[in-house]
Amino acid sequence: MPAPILCQRDLEFLLYEVFDAESLTKRPRYADHNRETFDAAVTTARNVAEKYFLPIRAKVDAHQPTFEQGAVNMIPEIKIALDAVIQSGLSSASADYDLGGMQLPNIVTNCTEAWLTAAGSTLLGYVFLSSANANLIDAYGTEAQKNKWVRPIRSGDFAGTMAMSEPNAGSGLADLTTSAVRQADGSYRIVGNKIWISGGDHELNENIVHLVLARVKGAASGVKGISLFIVPKYLVNDDGSLGARNDVALAGVFHKMGGRGQTSTALNFGEHGGAEGYLVGEENKGLMYMFHMMNEARIIVGFSGAINALAGYQYALDYAKQRPQGRLPSCKDPLTPPVNIIQHADVKRMLLAQKAYSEGGFALCMFGSQLADDIKTAPSEERRRYASLLLDTLIPVIKSWPSEYGCKANSMAIQVLGGAGYVNEHPVEMFYRDNRLNPIHEGTTGIQSVDLLGRKVMMHQGAGLDAVISEFQSTIALAIENERLAPYAGQLGRAVDSLLATTASIQNGMISEGVDLALANSARYLDMFGNITIAWIWLKLGLVADGGLLAAEHQHDKDFYQGKLQAMQYFYRFDLPEIYPWAELLGRLDATTSEMQPEWF
Amino acid sequence: MPAPILCQRDLEFLLYEVFDAESLTKRPRYADHNRETFDAAVTTARNVAEKYFLPIRAKVDAHQPTFEQGAVNMIPEIKIALDAVIQSGLSSASADYDLGGMQLPNIVTNCTEAWLTAAGSTLLGYVFLSSANANLIDAYGTEAQKNKWVRPIRSGDFAGTMAMSEPNAGSGLADLTTSAVRQADGSYRIVGNKIWISGGDHELNENIVHLVLARVKGAASGVKGISLFIVPKYLVNDDGSLGARNDVALAGVFHKMGGRGQTSTALNFGEHGGAEGYLVGEENKGLMYMFHMMNEARIIVGFSGAINALAGYQYALDYAKQRPQGRLPSCKDPLTPPVNIIQHADVKRMLLAQKAYSEGGFALCMFGSQLADDIKTAPSEERRRYASLLLDTLIPVIKSWPSEYGCKANSMAIQVLGGAGYVNEHPVEMFYRDNRLNPIHEGTTGIQSVDLLGRKVMMHQGAGLDAVISEFQSTIALAIENERLAPYAGQLGRAVDSLLATTASIQNGMISEGVDLALANSARYLDMFGNITIAWIWLKLGLVADGGLLAAEHQHDKDFYQGKLQAMQYFYRFDLPEIYPWAELLGRLDATTSEMQPEWF
Repeated sequence: MPAPILCQRDLEFLLYEVFDAESLTKRPRYADHNRETFDAAVTTARNVAEKYFLPIRAKVDAHQPTFEQGAVNMIPEIKIALDAVIQSGLSSASADYDLGGMQLPNIVTNCTEAWLTAAGSTLLGYVFLSSANANLIDAYGTEAQKNKWVRPIRSGDFAGTMAMSEPNAGSGLADLTTSAVRQADGSYRIVGNKIWISGGDHELNENIVHLVLARVKGAASGVKGISLFIVPKYLVNDDGSLGARNDVALAGVFHKMGGRGQTSTALNFGEHGGAEGYLVGEENKGLMYMFHMMNEARIIVGFSGAINALAGYQYALDYAKQRPQGRLPSCKDPLTPPVNIIQHADVKRMLLAQKAYSEGGFALCMFGSQLADDIKTAPSEERRRYASLLLDTLIPVIKSWPSEYGCKANSMAIQVLGGAGYVNEHPVEMFYRDNRLNPIHEGTTGIQSVDLLGRKVMMHQGAGLDAVISEFQSTIALAIENERLAPYAGQLGRAVDSLLATTASIQNGMISEGVDLALANSARYLDMFGNITIAWIWLKLGLVADGGLLAAEHQHDKDFYQGKLQAMQYFYRFDLPEIYPWAELLGRLDATTSEMQPEWF
Repeated sequence: MPAPILCQRDLEFLLYEVFDAESLTKRPRYADHNRETFDAAVTTARNVAEKYFLPIRAKVDAHQPTFEQGAVNMIPEIKIALDAVIQSGLSSASADYDLGGMQLPNIVTNCTEAWLTAAGSTLLGYVFLSSANANLIDAYGTEAQKNKWVRPIRSGDFAGTMAMSEPNAGSGLADLTTSAVRQADGSYRIVGNKIWISGGDHELNENIVHLVLARVKGAASGVKGISLFIVPKYLVNDDGSLGARNDVALAGVFHKMGGRGQTSTALNFGEHGGAEGYLVGEENKGLMYMFHMMNEARIIVGFSGAINALAGYQYALDYAKQRPQGRLPSCKDPLTPPVNIIQHADVKRMLLAQKAYSEGGFALCMFGSQLADDIKTAPSEERRRYASLLLDTLIPVIKSWPSEYGCKANSMAIQVLGGAGYVNEHPVEMFYRDNRLNPIHEGTTGIQSVDLLGRKVMMHQGAGLDAVISEFQSTIALAIENERLAPYAGQLGRAVDSLLATTASIQNGMISEGVDLALANSARYLDMFGNITIAWIWLKLGLVADGGLLAAEHQHDKDFYQGKLQAMQYFYRFDLPEIYPWAELLGRLDATTSEMQPEWF
């Protein structure tokens, strides 16, 4: 029997026991739904994943897209698998009914995407990007733009991309130089070079709609002068038929360590006078629009980090249960049969760590999706605003913690398999390569840390931080009443106190020492904030698991909840305490890195 | 100008300022040598590295060996590069003059190998393995065996391998089943399947000498019944000419995530009745012989981990110095030009961490080589025995710390480059893949941790641990007298106290709670022991750097020593303090992992 891709029981635990997805069906947008329709969507995703994605996963990884005669060449199985997603309706599962969607909540579509991502190497990127692109035009485009571009993207006829980075401005969007010149007919001529464009060219769809950041001639420098444009690969006539090829050329395909399910390209816009582009919204607001979408993209990156980790964990677990090797230290008799390696304490440590990191990271992303659903559909304006504040503040953690710890988990999955984990007979080395992109794209971990410490915890007079802390405190208040969980609640309470004290020290330091020194150790602050956030989410999971354990009748349910509680314990014993040396370093505004001089290296 | 492969100045610092390699020339074995001959060997290695290895590194990585018509197929450039190593004499640089060697000390040959390894992807594995194989036959074989097998290996005509693992006994050698039956002529017939045989088959040399672990019919079970055999690919006549092909067949080639410079194979011995093999030493002592060689192999793995990290660090450093992007947080004017990313505090953090891990890990391995030289050539029997005790105790740390932290360093090298680090235009993603093998082969990190805690710190009534601690203490005693270094000496002293207390708690626990629980967190113990050992080596480096800084006249020397002191400070501020939460966990014999039940996962 092949190793399970994901743990179905775990998805159900999160969806229904922890985040109570059924309660969403009381909201008008989801009124047609119930647990059966949610389950049906997740089961459809699982079936597509098992039938179309899993069988080709290794082949996709071994055959990365190539650049041949100006076009992208990829194995034909990819189109078949992606078409299956589109035909199943899963590619626009959360979209409005009247745009061809299923109006499913985010928290449910994240579970459908989990199956496809876990089984599909990184092929799902095409779907995610197209969907994010369509959502952005939906939010800021005109009705005409929605009809012309969003409909064919939702139906799967067109694909969508995001074209932001340039060779000389990767993370530094302020310096991008792609230019846009307004024409008499209201369109723009776009000229510039873009890199790292995922899905930037391919033959999977009849057209590709690029969303391009560019600077209108004469606009302000820096991020304030950036506008957003729709730039299609083929022009589209008003009747929806394809027109001439636009002035967008594929300049090259990057050869990536992982993520080979998705092509990454360099595109040249306007080699022959200028690509035709159409302004989205108003001039100079492009980055604001893009950042709206960026939250969505960053949750997806966090999910991807967690799902890679979950998939690696499930694989390593299955292997450890079946692989006999060695004996316990107390056994000195070579005639006894070897034990399965899951019996070895250090293998259990590596599996527990993977469980704590992957399931904790995934649960945090699910919490983020719950907030996204609340922003869209919570009955009260107050709740919507609160959810928005909370999500904005937590985005850097949701994006980076599952990415960083997902990579650690994937490394441990390799280690559980030993030499077998290092070769391509098993997928764990692929997960390790795939996941390594997640701490980089959509804003590196370093950039997330500056966003968190330099902006998010400061904004609205600290209201975002207050909101996060109040979430932590209300979980602590529940857990402190529970005999089993009270020690963990106490531990989390002390960690939160330490976080608040540390934050205050840094904020004082911003005034007394200046922003550069105060932000110098922001990455450690993100580590600290992240570990406390994950400890909190585990306490939330622990509360549900403890209740579940008390009520459980079947042994497999008891085992399931015991496992959750043990993973929580693991995180509180092995990981949470590491914040204290970090707090000390942060609290004293350690200057080791900022004082380092380039010539000393 | 291409990025430097390694920092030449750093090798000289270690060789001459820290480890005083010149003092070795007073010993008879090295009497013909002086600093000039040492430098000449290192320069030769650098030249071969730059001329033959660096230009083909990416190509080697992109063209891993394939299995075609029963043979290994690899790109022809590999043989040219390896022949250049052999012709330069570097492949047997430490061997005796009368075996065609140069009689160079280990500490010097490690620097020659550093250049070749850093530039050569993982091609050097062929040389290392052949050399280790020859050393083992040298140590335990008969004169006839040395003449027949060692000479042609040293000259480069033959290659050598180690064939230990089997499909059902990877790390668990006690369960290996390859059998050996003694023949009337004194030879043996070997039958069994071996996997993960690096260099197990290829056409680079005219013959391959496998050293095979097997069980003589009727021998004891477990590790006590294992013997060691020479099993050549081609039989060799008494005049040295090649005879018939032996009954050894290539069964397959593994496709590895990294380390693609070297083939990893599955070999079947005795498909047609039995491969002819020749016993090394006595029956049933095979594992003891192999473990003698294992220390050498484990130092090489540690070196490889550190050198991959050094190479990645140098590359990322070069990139960070030249890549403009973004502005400091205090700069709000988008019209100022972007700074080079080396100015960003978080990039400096990632570079400082890489420097601390790679240079610290490499220095520890150099210390290990100094001990290996002392074991062979120290004038007094007492010093030789002490060096042997010290090296035996430290081997698990030397093997695993540079491997584990080397992987962390390589991950940060990718992160410094961002998206560019994830694609094969730059070698940092290759280093990341290559290095991931080092925590696995020659005994996983988990196995090293059990070796350290369950054996090394206990052996000879704790004499090994005492020896390590006394090394730590004598460095502390020197540093405590130095104004700049006294705080670090104090910090290390407290860490050593914590290590001793933790060790005592665990030893008590072995008696009261049993060995399984006491060893359950051995990996954390290795982490703790490792970080303290690296803090100690950095204090040693700091002492030399402080002296160097005082005496330095040129700015580049001052910068160099300042960098060393800052990297030391980084390790003491960012990494060493993490031992305290680990000590708490270890001291209370935390049972989280050991109590975890397989069915709870």
